[in-house]
Amino acid sequence: MEQIFITDVAPRDGLQNQQIEVSTEAKLELIARLVSAGVNSVETTSFVSPKAVPQMADAGELVPQVNARWPQLRSSVLVPNLKGLERAHASGAKEIAVVLSATETMNRKNINMGLAEALEVSEKTLAAAHALGLKTRAYVAVAFECPFEGETSLDEVLRLAARMHAAGAGEIVIADTIGAAAPAQVKERMTVIRDAVPLSQLAIHLHDTRGMGVANAWSALEVGVRRFDASAGGIGGCPFAPGAAGNLATEDLVLMARQSGFETGISLNGLLDAVAFAEAQLQRPLGGRSGAWLRRTRAQRETTAASA
Amino acid sequence: MEQIFITDVAPRDGLQNQQIEVSTEAKLELIARLVSAGVNSVETTSFVSPKAVPQMADAGELVPQVNARWPQLRSSVLVPNLKGLERAHASGAKEIAVVLSATETMNRKNINMGLAEALEVSEKTLAAAHALGLKTRAYVAVAFECPFEGETSLDEVLRLAARMHAAGAGEIVIADTIGAAAPAQVKERMTVIRDAVPLSQLAIHLHDTRGMGVANAWSALEVGVRRFDASAGGIGGCPFAPGAAGNLATEDLVLMARQSGFETGISLNGLLDAVAFAEAQLQRPLGGRSGAWLRRTRAQRETTAASA
Repeated sequence: MEQIFITDVAPRDGLQNQQIEVSTEAKLELIARLVSAGVNSVETTSFVSPKAVPQMADAGELVPQVNARWPQLRSSVLVPNLKGLERAHASGAKEIAVVLSATETMNRKNINMGLAEALEVSEKTLAAAHALGLKTRAYVAVAFECPFEGETSLDEVLRLAARMHAAGAGEIVIADTIGAAAPAQVKERMTVIRDAVPLSQLAIHLHDTRGMGVANAWSALEVGVRRFDASAGGIGGCPFAPGAAGNLATEDLVLMARQSGFETGISLNGLLDAVAFAEAQLQRPLGGRSGAWLRRTRAQRETTAASA
Repeated sequence: MEQIFITDVAPRDGLQNQQIEVSTEAKLELIARLVSAGVNSVETTSFVSPKAVPQMADAGELVPQVNARWPQLRSSVLVPNLKGLERAHASGAKEIAVVLSATETMNRKNINMGLAEALEVSEKTLAAAHALGLKTRAYVAVAFECPFEGETSLDEVLRLAARMHAAGAGEIVIADTIGAAAPAQVKERMTVIRDAVPLSQLAIHLHDTRGMGVANAWSALEVGVRRFDASAGGIGGCPFAPGAAGNLATEDLVLMARQSGFETGISLNGLLDAVAFAEAQLQRPLGGRSGAWLRRTRAQRETTAASA
């Protein structure tokens, strides 16, 4: 079976938008359950302004604890600029992610800069991170549709992806930030982008707003994409992007990928444990589109290695 | 835009498994709303034993009323055997469907016959229907996985599909009766089956049990399939197939297909009206994976022709 690589973004993209405050201990427990499930790459937190995103105010405490408990875990943290990078580095972060939106308005709403300035900041942040010996990811956000500008220019997405690749980003993450894409768009755009960014460095970040997250993931797999962001239980949504409810659920992706002949290294029952914990913390039902079926057949799967 | 053809099976496959009795008037109103939404093919009812499926006991009254109210509507009815065909024909049915399961056990559980006998009955029923001048569909059920026998033999599915084609069935419907397929299986199987059955006569019937209904539909579209069964609101499930909860929702299919460049002739807002009516009748929330987003953006879509 061919391998695919999943970064679980529940601790960052998942939690950042939640109204209920989640303690540092609870975040560590969520990560512990993800690691137990076999997740080997986590987006741990974000070094953004604690005023803008209070849920991420404990980033500086979380990172060293994650590093100490799971030294082998790939743990990345989002940084909006050089100041965020400084804080991330001081905390011991080993990999950082920058977020560059593909439209003027989204950059202004998200980080209060225009696109040209945001691009420059991203490139400088990547360069500074590399100088510090850190690994890097670069998001190209609203890469399909922008909640403010509508359909995003593919030329612009391509240009920005190529710039992020040229700037040395280890992974370039094409993000359907508001979950507006359909499989045909994923196919069209990823087919073009894979000519500018090597598939080994190309990832896709999907949301499930319109119920097409799994279909979009399949479409990306068919184009050759092997790196995915997903969020256990589908926890997620972007506070600055109206309509961005729900990330692609990790369990939906793992189930579809496994049945389609790809190895993820992740246990579905382990994911259900992580989702159950997140539900208790957030005090609401979570779970992807496959959640009801996964729970109903859990006992059965426990005893059936082939489908577990 | 290329056309795809959707048969809404909510009145039959959707309702047959529901505990709450739905009146003939309510069924007519559901069909009326589907027709208003632009649906031009409906699986109206089933001429099975009223003892086995009480919800379908009014088949003989429903068909003439549907014919009278919507003479242009493509309306098909399920018949299990020659006796069912006789009743269907007496009611004025213009198109019938036979159901042939691809495994021995499923046929026994569903219609109390072995596969060989079921195949013979299906062929005889098709021949008799053609002699009466009726149009026909033939389902090959549990074409991916059987709840009793596990993975279904593709050779067997292929053989049965070819036999149904040879028997003159106007449409051969490959059914993932329990919603167990993943996109890779849909691709593999439909690619083989399209060599035995012309694409113009090949349909796929999907369930959404594991959250892969839309992904499977996309996979089928990519292989060239243009005929789909779906059920407004995702109403459905097979009473004799454990775990068959939820058909692919028509609205999920329409949304995905439209965004992917296919024309369906169906209005999403119209479908929401049909789903709202079904919810009131069945006294529980319905709706596909896109339901929350469709409802939230309904007002907006009403005024945006491009995305409506």
